[in-house]
Amino acid sequence: MSPEGLRALLEGVREGRISPDDALERLRQLPFEDLGFAKVDHHRALRRGFPEAIFGAGKSPDQVRAIVESIVGRGQNVLVTRAGREVFEGVAALRPEAEYHEAARCISVRVAPTALLGGRVAVACAGTSDVPVAEEAAVTASFHGAEVDRVYDVGVAGLHRLLDRAPLIRAADVVIVAAGMEGALPSVVAGIVEAPVVAVPTSVGYGASFHGLAALLAMLNSCASGVAVVNIDNGFGAGYLASLILRRLAKRAGG
Amino acid sequence: MSPEGLRALLEGVREGRISPDDALERLRQLPFEDLGFAKVDHHRALRRGFPEAIFGAGKSPDQVRAIVESIVGRGQNVLVTRAGREVFEGVAALRPEAEYHEAARCISVRVAPTALLGGRVAVACAGTSDVPVAEEAAVTASFHGAEVDRVYDVGVAGLHRLLDRAPLIRAADVVIVAAGMEGALPSVVAGIVEAPVVAVPTSVGYGASFHGLAALLAMLNSCASGVAVVNIDNGFGAGYLASLILRRLAKRAGG
Amino acid sequence: MSPEGLRALLEGVREGRISPDDALERLRQLPFEDLGFAKVDHHRALRRGFPEAIFGAGKSPDQVRAIVESIVGRGQNVLVTRAGREVFEGVAALRPEAEYHEAARCISVRVAPTALLGGRVAVACAGTSDVPVAEEAAVTASFHGAEVDRVYDVGVAGLHRLLDRAPLIRAADVVIVAAGMEGALPSVVAGIVEAPVVAVPTSVGYGASFHGLAALLAMLNSCASGVAVVNIDNGFGAGYLASLILRRLAKRAGG
Amino acid sequence: MSPEGLRALLEGVREGRISPDDALERLRQLPFEDLGFAKVDHHRALRRGFPEAIFGAGKSPDQVRAIVESIVGRGQNVLVTRAGREVFEGVAALRPEAEYHEAARCISVRVAPTALLGGRVAVACAGTSDVPVAEEAAVTASFHGAEVDRVYDVGVAGLHRLLDRAPLIRAADVVIVAAGMEGALPSVVAGIVEAPVVAVPTSVGYGASFHGLAALLAMLNSCASGVAVVNIDNGFGAGYLASLILRRLAKRAGG
Amino acid sequence: MSPEGLRALLEGVREGRISPDDALERLRQLPFEDLGFAKVDHHRALRRGFPEAIFGAGKSPDQVRAIVESIVGRGQNVLVTRAGREVFEGVAALRPEAEYHEAARCISVRVAPTALLGGRVAVACAGTSDVPVAEEAAVTASFHGAEVDRVYDVGVAGLHRLLDRAPLIRAADVVIVAAGMEGALPSVVAGIVEAPVVAVPTSVGYGASFHGLAALLAMLNSCASGVAVVNIDNGFGAGYLASLILRRLAKRAGG
Amino acid sequence: MSPEGLRALLEGVREGRISPDDALERLRQLPFEDLGFAKVDHHRALRRGFPEAIFGAGKSPDQVRAIVESIVGRGQNVLVTRAGREVFEGVAALRPEAEYHEAARCISVRVAPTALLGGRVAVACAGTSDVPVAEEAAVTASFHGAEVDRVYDVGVAGLHRLLDRAPLIRAADVVIVAAGMEGALPSVVAGIVEAPVVAVPTSVGYGASFHGLAALLAMLNSCASGVAVVNIDNGFGAGYLASLILRRLAKRAGG
Amino acid sequence: MSPEGLRALLEGVREGRISPDDALERLRQLPFEDLGFAKVDHHRALRRGFPEAIFGAGKSPDQVRAIVESIVGRGQNVLVTRAGREVFEGVAALRPEAEYHEAARCISVRVAPTALLGGRVAVACAGTSDVPVAEEAAVTASFHGAEVDRVYDVGVAGLHRLLDRAPLIRAADVVIVAAGMEGALPSVVAGIVEAPVVAVPTSVGYGASFHGLAALLAMLNSCASGVAVVNIDNGFGAGYLASLILRRLAKRAGG
Amino acid sequence: MSPEGLRALLEGVREGRISPDDALERLRQLPFEDLGFAKVDHHRALRRGFPEAIFGAGKSPDQVRAIVESIVGRGQNVLVTRAGREVFEGVAALRPEAEYHEAARCISVRVAPTALLGGRVAVACAGTSDVPVAEEAAVTASFHGAEVDRVYDVGVAGLHRLLDRAPLIRAADVVIVAAGMEGALPSVVAGIVEAPVVAVPTSVGYGASFHGLAALLAMLNSCASGVAVVNIDNGFGAGYLASLILRRLAKRAGG
Repeated sequence: MSPEGLRALLEGVREGRISPDDALERLRQLPFEDLGFAKVDHHRALRRGFPEAIFGAGKSPDQVRAIVESIVGRGQNVLVTRAGREVFEGVAALRPEAEYHEAARCISVRVAPTALLGGRVAVACAGTSDVPVAEEAAVTASFHGAEVDRVYDVGVAGLHRLLDRAPLIRAADVVIVAAGMEGALPSVVAGIVEAPVVAVPTSVGYGASFHGLAALLAMLNSCASGVAVVNIDNGFGAGYLASLILRRLAKRAGG
Repeated sequence: MSPEGLRALLEGVREGRISPDDALERLRQLPFEDLGFAKVDHHRALRRGFPEAIFGAGKSPDQVRAIVESIVGRGQNVLVTRAGREVFEGVAALRPEAEYHEAARCISVRVAPTALLGGRVAVACAGTSDVPVAEEAAVTASFHGAEVDRVYDVGVAGLHRLLDRAPLIRAADVVIVAAGMEGALPSVVAGIVEAPVVAVPTSVGYGASFHGLAALLAMLNSCASGVAVVNIDNGFGAGYLASLILRRLAKRAGG
Repeated sequence: MSPEGLRALLEGVREGRISPDDALERLRQLPFEDLGFAKVDHHRALRRGFPEAIFGAGKSPDQVRAIVESIVGRGQNVLVTRAGREVFEGVAALRPEAEYHEAARCISVRVAPTALLGGRVAVACAGTSDVPVAEEAAVTASFHGAEVDRVYDVGVAGLHRLLDRAPLIRAADVVIVAAGMEGALPSVVAGIVEAPVVAVPTSVGYGASFHGLAALLAMLNSCASGVAVVNIDNGFGAGYLASLILRRLAKRAGG
Repeated sequence: MSPEGLRALLEGVREGRISPDDALERLRQLPFEDLGFAKVDHHRALRRGFPEAIFGAGKSPDQVRAIVESIVGRGQNVLVTRAGREVFEGVAALRPEAEYHEAARCISVRVAPTALLGGRVAVACAGTSDVPVAEEAAVTASFHGAEVDRVYDVGVAGLHRLLDRAPLIRAADVVIVAAGMEGALPSVVAGIVEAPVVAVPTSVGYGASFHGLAALLAMLNSCASGVAVVNIDNGFGAGYLASLILRRLAKRAGG
Repeated sequence: MSPEGLRALLEGVREGRISPDDALERLRQLPFEDLGFAKVDHHRALRRGFPEAIFGAGKSPDQVRAIVESIVGRGQNVLVTRAGREVFEGVAALRPEAEYHEAARCISVRVAPTALLGGRVAVACAGTSDVPVAEEAAVTASFHGAEVDRVYDVGVAGLHRLLDRAPLIRAADVVIVAAGMEGALPSVVAGIVEAPVVAVPTSVGYGASFHGLAALLAMLNSCASGVAVVNIDNGFGAGYLASLILRRLAKRAGG
Repeated sequence: MSPEGLRALLEGVREGRISPDDALERLRQLPFEDLGFAKVDHHRALRRGFPEAIFGAGKSPDQVRAIVESIVGRGQNVLVTRAGREVFEGVAALRPEAEYHEAARCISVRVAPTALLGGRVAVACAGTSDVPVAEEAAVTASFHGAEVDRVYDVGVAGLHRLLDRAPLIRAADVVIVAAGMEGALPSVVAGIVEAPVVAVPTSVGYGASFHGLAALLAMLNSCASGVAVVNIDNGFGAGYLASLILRRLAKRAGG
Repeated sequence: MSPEGLRALLEGVREGRISPDDALERLRQLPFEDLGFAKVDHHRALRRGFPEAIFGAGKSPDQVRAIVESIVGRGQNVLVTRAGREVFEGVAALRPEAEYHEAARCISVRVAPTALLGGRVAVACAGTSDVPVAEEAAVTASFHGAEVDRVYDVGVAGLHRLLDRAPLIRAADVVIVAAGMEGALPSVVAGIVEAPVVAVPTSVGYGASFHGLAALLAMLNSCASGVAVVNIDNGFGAGYLASLILRRLAKRAGG
Repeated sequence: MSPEGLRALLEGVREGRISPDDALERLRQLPFEDLGFAKVDHHRALRRGFPEAIFGAGKSPDQVRAIVESIVGRGQNVLVTRAGREVFEGVAALRPEAEYHEAARCISVRVAPTALLGGRVAVACAGTSDVPVAEEAAVTASFHGAEVDRVYDVGVAGLHRLLDRAPLIRAADVVIVAAGMEGALPSVVAGIVEAPVVAVPTSVGYGASFHGLAALLAMLNSCASGVAVVNIDNGFGAGYLASLILRRLAKRAGG
C-alpha cells in the first residue's frame, strides 16, 4: 500500500464509505511493506532496480529452469551462478536468448535492456586457477550494467605483470581482486590504486590453505587500507557489491 | 621525478648538458616513484589525497607525538586511532588544535581544511558495547570529509528500533554496520537499503564468540548480497573504505 | 523389580521361604532399574511415553527394516530420520501404513494412535535450502503429537516476509528456527516472540560457513535471550525438545 | 499506538476532526511498535512481562547504578549479572533493597512483587568450579519467579551422587545442567529425566578444554535427545530460557 | 551398606525384628553405594585405595587448607597439585608434616604410611621448561607408592642424551613422557621401550604451538604403538594412571 | 648382535682369530641393534615379543598379501587392520588359516601359537556405530593374547545398561572405552572401575562432532582420573596398549 | 630494455635522432622489466636459470600437453607435478623423451642438458606412505641438477634405521625430511646433521592428524634449530628450495 | 669413544690386558656418541661449530646469568634471545663485554673471535612493528658470522619502497622476510630474488590475525617457490637457518 493508497483509505473513512473497523482490519492485514512509510516491504532485488540472480548450486536443472521461466516471464533479466553446461542446455531449450559464460559457470538471460551503470570495474586475479571466481565476479558486474576490465594472472610472485597492467586497474571505479593460496594480491593492488578494493579469497590451494581460509585471513588482515572482503569463492557477491557502488556513482552523476 | 622532470633530463641530454651515462645513472638511482610513468611511487595516503592516519596501538605517547608533529609540520591533517587520553594529552600539549574523540579513542589534528566529500555515511551498531568500533568508523569517515549519521543500539533482537531509523540509514551512500556476538545486523540492514554495506565484526561477546570470530564468520556468510567485511574491530578500515567510495562519487559528480 | 516385587521378596524372607543368602544374591543380580527406587532403568524412550526414533544415516535398508519391524511388532509407532526413498520402499513393502515425508527424508509408521500434546510448534527457516532440516523438525514434532505451523523462506534479508508471518510465529508455544549461512534468523525471531526458541544451525552455505560452524557460533552468541541451540542439521533434536516442552504443558494443563 | 488508539485516530478522521493528511503524517511518524497490529515494537523485556536484566561485565559501577536507578525508578525489578561486590555496594547505597548473590555474582533489586511461575527448575552442576555459572542460572530463574532446586557437585565420575539426587532432578519441569571439562553431565541427566534439559558449558578446565570449547562441543553432540545448549558460561541465558518455558506452563495451567 | 549389613537387615526381617515395610524404606533411603552389590557408591578415591588429591588451581589458600584438614583429620594422606608456596605455608602452619615439592608445585601431607606399589615409573621430559609438568607426574606417582626414575632434558634434537639414559627408561613398568613444542619425544621413547607410554603434552612453546595444541596433536598421531595421551600439562593425570597400572601389577604379583 | 655374539667377537680378538681392524669394521658395519648394548636395534614388534600388525588402509590387496606372506613365511602371526573383505579374500587364497573379523574389518593369520597374557581387557562402546572401532580394539587385544569381554551399546543416556554390565567391566585389568558424539562414556566408566581406562574417540557423529574432535576433546578433559586417550578411531592403538599393560602383569606374575 | 638499450635510447636523444617526447613515451610504455635497472621483469623461472614446472593438479591432460609443448617448443626442459599416468601418456605421445616418475607422480621432459648443481640433497621420509611426497621432492631436486640420496622409511619409532643411514644424511648439503602423523622426524634429523633441514609435512594419517595439520604444527615447533617448513605435501617446494640453496653453493664454489 | 679409542680397546683385548667381559661392560656403558661411528653424540651446537644460544623467555635474570657464565667460562661466545634490559644488566655486571641489542631484545657476549661466514643475509620486514622479530633474525645471523643487510618497512602496500631496495635484497645469499598481518611480503620478495627465502610470520596484527596465524598460513601457501617458513615470531630460527646455509657456502668455497 503506497502513501496514496493509504490516503485513499483514510479518505474513504472520512467520507463514511469505509467504517473505522473495516479500515483497521485492512491495515492489520496488509503486509508491512505496503504501508509505504516503512519500505521494508519491496522485494529486495526489485527495489534496487537490479535483475534477480539465482544461486545454482544444489538446484536441479528443472528447478533452475522453472525459476528462470518465472522471472523471465515477468519480463525481467536473470542471472544463474554456479551452473553447469547441462543446466544451461535446459534453460536454452526454453529461452534461446540464454547465454552461457563457460569460464564463470554462469547463465544470463536478457529479455530487457540492461541499464548501463556508466562506471568501470577492474577484475584482477592471481593465477589461472582463480579465473572461475574472477569470471563470476566479472559476469555479475557486467550483467548489472558495469563495464568490466579483466586483468588476470597477475600474481604477486611476478610483479612486473601486475605493474604492466597497472594503468588499466587504476582506471577503474572499483577493483575486484580474486586470489587463493596466500591471498596477497589485494594488498598489493590496494597499494597502487585509489579506488575501493573488494577482495575475494578463492579455495585454490591445498594443504594449509584449508580450502581458502589462508587467503581469507590474509585479506582480512591486509596492511593496505581500503580493502573489504567477501566469502570464499563468492565472485557473485563481489560483482554485486561493485555494481551497487557504481549505481551510487550513476545516481550522483545523474543527480 | 615527474614527467616534467624526466623531460627536463632528456632535454639536458639532447642539449649535451648531461651525458647519457650520467642520465643513465640518475635514472638508475632514482626511486621508481619519481619516474612519473610508473606511479607506484607516491606515498599511498598522499597519492589518494587523503590525510595520514596512525595506528596508535603499541606506540608510546612519545612516538605518537613525534609522528604527529612530523606530519602536522608539513601542514597536513592527521588522525590517530586506538589512542588513550594520556596519548591525547601529549599531543594536545604540542598542538592545541588537537581534538579527542573519547568514544572512538581517536585523536584528530586539523591544520588544513578538510575537503568535503559531499556524501553521507550511515554508521549503525548493534549494542552499546559496539559503540567504540562504530565511533572509530564514524570519526574516520568524518575526518576524511564524509557527512556521518550515527544509528546506534539497533540490534536485531529489537527490530522496531532499527526500522524506526530505517529512513536515515536508507539516505546514506554507504552504510557501515558494526556488530559483535552473532553479527546478524549487517544482513538485516543490507535487506532494507540500496547502498553498499561495509560490515565490521567486533570482539564484543564471550565464550563461543571467540573474540569476534563468530561475528566475522556470520558476516562473511551474509545471505544478503552487497555486504563486504573488514577485520574484527577495524572501524578505521570501514570508515576509510567508505571515504574511498565517496571520493569516487565526488569525482563523478564533479566530472 | 518393582516396589511390590521387592516387598514380596522381603515377605518371602520373613516367612522363611527365601533364605537371606538367596535374597542377597537375587538383589545383587538384578539390574538396577528393577529395584523401583532407582528408576534409572526404564528404556528412555518408553519411559517418556514417546515412540521410538531411528537415526537412519549409515544404516542399510535391511537394518532399518528389521528395527522398524521389531518396534512395530510390539505395537509401537516409529520414526526413521535421514532415510532415502529406497529405505522407505523397503519399509513400506513390510508395513503399508508407512508414510514417507519426502522433504524431511523421514519415514513414519503409525500403528497406534498418537497422543496429541495440545500445543503448537512453529517451525521457521531462512531459505529454501534449509527446508530439509526444518521439515525434519516439523515431522518429528508432529509425530510426537504437536500441532505444527511452518513458516519457511523468511530470511533476515527480507524482513517483511518474516514480519508478515509474525502472528503465526507468535501463536506458538515453542518456536524452532533453522538457518544456515550467517544463522541470524533465531535472534530476529526471538526478538518478536514470547516463547522459547530452539535454534538449529544448518550446513547450508559454502566457504567460510565451514559446514554450519558459522551459523552455529552465531546462534550460540545470540543477542536475544531465550534461545538454545542444537547440533548442526539436527532437526530431529529440535523437534524432540519442542515435544518434551509441550508434554510438560500438557501435564500441567491436565493436572 | 494501541488498536484502540488507531481506532480513535480513524474515528477522528471520519468525524472530520483530523484531516487525512494529518492522520497520514501521524502514522508515518509513529514508531512501529505503537501501531498495535505490528507488535514488533514493545520493548522486548517488557513485552514478555519479565523484569529487565543488565549484563554487568564491562560496565562501571556508576553505569550500572544509573541503569538500575532508571529501571527501579519506573517501579520495575532488575537483575544485574556479572557484578562484583563493589558494584553491589554502589547499588545498595542507592537502593537498600538490593540483594547480593555472592556465588552467582548477581545483584537483584525487587521493588515490585515477583509473579510466581508455579513450576520447578532443577539446576545441576558437575563440580564446585561450575557453581558460579550454575548459580547465575539459579538466581536468574528464581528472579523470574521459578522455584529452584540446586543439585551441585554431581559429576559423572561419581555416579552415585547423581543417582542419589535423581528424584529431585526428576521432579523438575526444566533441568539446567552446567558442566565444564568434558561436558558429559547433560547427556547423563537427560537419560534419567523426562523434562527438557538446557545445557550450559562452562569454561572450567585447562589445556585442551580450550576455555569451554570441549564442553560446548560435547553438549552439542549429546547422544541423549532433549538437550539444547547455550553459550559458554551463559548461566543467565539458561535461567531465562527455563523461565520462558515455565511461563508457557503457567499460561496453559491458567487457561 | 556392606553385604554384611544387607544380610543383617534381611536376617532382621526373617526374625521378625524388622517389618518388610521398614526394610523396604531403609533400602529405598540408603545411598546406592551402601547396598554393596552396586559398588557405584564408595568415594572413588577411597574405593581405589588411593589417598585423595586436590586440584589447587583456582582455590584460595584457606579453601585448600580446609579441605586438607578435613581429609587429614580422617587419617588420610593428601596431595595438592598446582599450589604455590603461599598455599603451602598455610597448610604447613596447620600440619607440620606437610612437604612442598617446589618444582612440581605440589604439597603432600602424609599422616599414614604409603602402600608401596612395587613397580617403577620412569618420567622423561624433553626440555627444562617441561620439568614442572614432569615433576607433577613424578610426585603424583611417588605419592601413590611408585618408585620413580627421572630422565629429564632428553629432547629429540640431542638423541645421545636420550640413548644414554635408555637403560633406565627400559627398566620401568610404565613410562611417562612430557614434552611441549613439537611433542616428538613420546614417539621416540616408545620406539625403544617395551612398557606402555603415557604422553603428556605441555604448553611449553610459543606461536604455532598454540599453548600445547601442536604437541597434543603430535602425540595423538604417534607413529609408535603403545602411546596414550592425557590433557595438556596434566602431569597429575599421567602419574595417577601410571599408579593405577602399577596397582594391577601389585595385585597380580601378590595374587 | 646379542651380548653373546659380542663376547664371541671379543674372544675372537683375544685369541687372535680376528684382527682388531676386522672387529672394528664389523662393529662399524653392523646395524646398531646387533650390538646388544644398545637395544635400539631389534625391530620393535619383534623385540616386544608381539607379532606384527599391518595398517591396511591405503594398501592394495596385492601389497597386503605380499607383506602378509613375507611375515607368515618367517613363521610369525600377523594382524591386518582396516581391511575390506576383498583384501581378506586375497590373503585367504594364499593362507587358508586366515580369519576375517568382519565387524572389526581385520584379518588375522595365525601360524604359531599365541602366547596368552593371562589378563582381561573389557572393551566398552557407547553406540552400535562405535562397534567397528571397539571391535578393532577387541580383536587386537585378543590377537596379542588377552582375554576380552565386550560390553557394547552402553551409552550414557541409558545408564542402567552400563550399570547392569558393571561387574564385567570391573573384572578387567584394563578397560578400553570407544565413544563418538559427546565422548562421555570413558568418564562415567572410569568413575566405577579401579583399572586404567584407555579412551578411543570415534568419528561417529555429524555436524559439530567435527569428525571425532568433540569426542576427543571431551576425553582429554575427563573429570575422572585414570583415563588416557588415543587417536580418533584408533582401536588398534588402544588394543595394543592394553596388551602391553597385560604383558607387564604377566611378567610380574611370572617373576 | 637492458641498460644497453636504455643508453642507446639516451644516445639517440642526445644525437637528436629521437625527440625527448618520443623517448618519454617509449619509457612510459615499456614494461618495467625492460628497463634493466629494475629486473622485476624477467619471468621468474627463467631469471633463476631454472627450467619451468607445472602444477598438474586440476589441469586436464590436454591443458598439460599444451603447456608442455609450448615450453619444450622453446627448447626448455619442463617438469609436471601431480600428474597421473594418463596425463603422462598424453605428453609422451607428443614428446617421446618424456619420462614418468611413478612414485612421485611427476613427468619430466628434458630437451636440453641439465646444468648440474654439484651438491647433494638427502631426502628422508618417515613411512612408506610418505614416499610420494618425498619422491616429488627428490625428482624436483634431481630435475634441477642436484644429486639426490633417498633415505626412506626411517621413522622415529625405529631409531636404529635412521641412525644406520645417518652418514648418508650427514653427507648432504641440504636435507629434506617428509613426515606425516606426528611429524617428529625433522627434529630428530636436525639433531644429527649440520646442514639446513627443509621439513615437509604430509597429509598421511587419520583422525587427529587433520590432514597434515598435526605434522605441520609439530615441524613449526621443532625444538631443533635449523628447520624450515613448506606447505603440507609440498614436495616440489622443498625440492625447489633445496635446489636454490645448491645454486648458491655452485656460484660460490665457482666464484 | 673415537675409532682410535675403540681400536685401542680391541688391542687391549687381543693383548690380554683387558678381559672380554670388561670390554663388553665398557662398550655397554659408553654413550653412543663415543663410538665415533655414530656421531650422534656431540653436543649439537658444538658439533656445528656454532656458539650456543639461550632462549631467554621464562628464565629469571639469575638463571640466564648462570648459564651465560657457564658457557663463557669455557671460552665460548653466547647469544641470549628474548631478554629484557634487566636481564642484560645482570649479565653485564658479570661480563662487561656483553652487548645489548635493544631492538632485538638480545644479548651477545663475545669472548672469542667470530668465524666470519663470508656471505650476506638480507633481512626484510613489512612494518615497523615487525622490527623486533627482524632484528632477532639479523642479530642472530650476525652473531654467527654473517654479513647482514637490513631492509625494513617495505610492506607490500607501498611497492616502490620495496623495489627501491631490490638491489640490496638481490645481493644476498639468503633472504629473511618477517611480516605480520596478511604475511604477503615473502611471496613478493621471492618473486624478485634468486636466493632462498626464509619467511618469519610475526604476531603483529589484531582480530583475525589470530596472533600470527593469518601470516603463517599465508606464507605456507606462498605462490612463489623457494620459500620456507619458521614458527611465528621465531627470528632466531630464521637467522640460525640462514647461518647454516652460509656455512655450507663457506665450506664449498673453501673446499
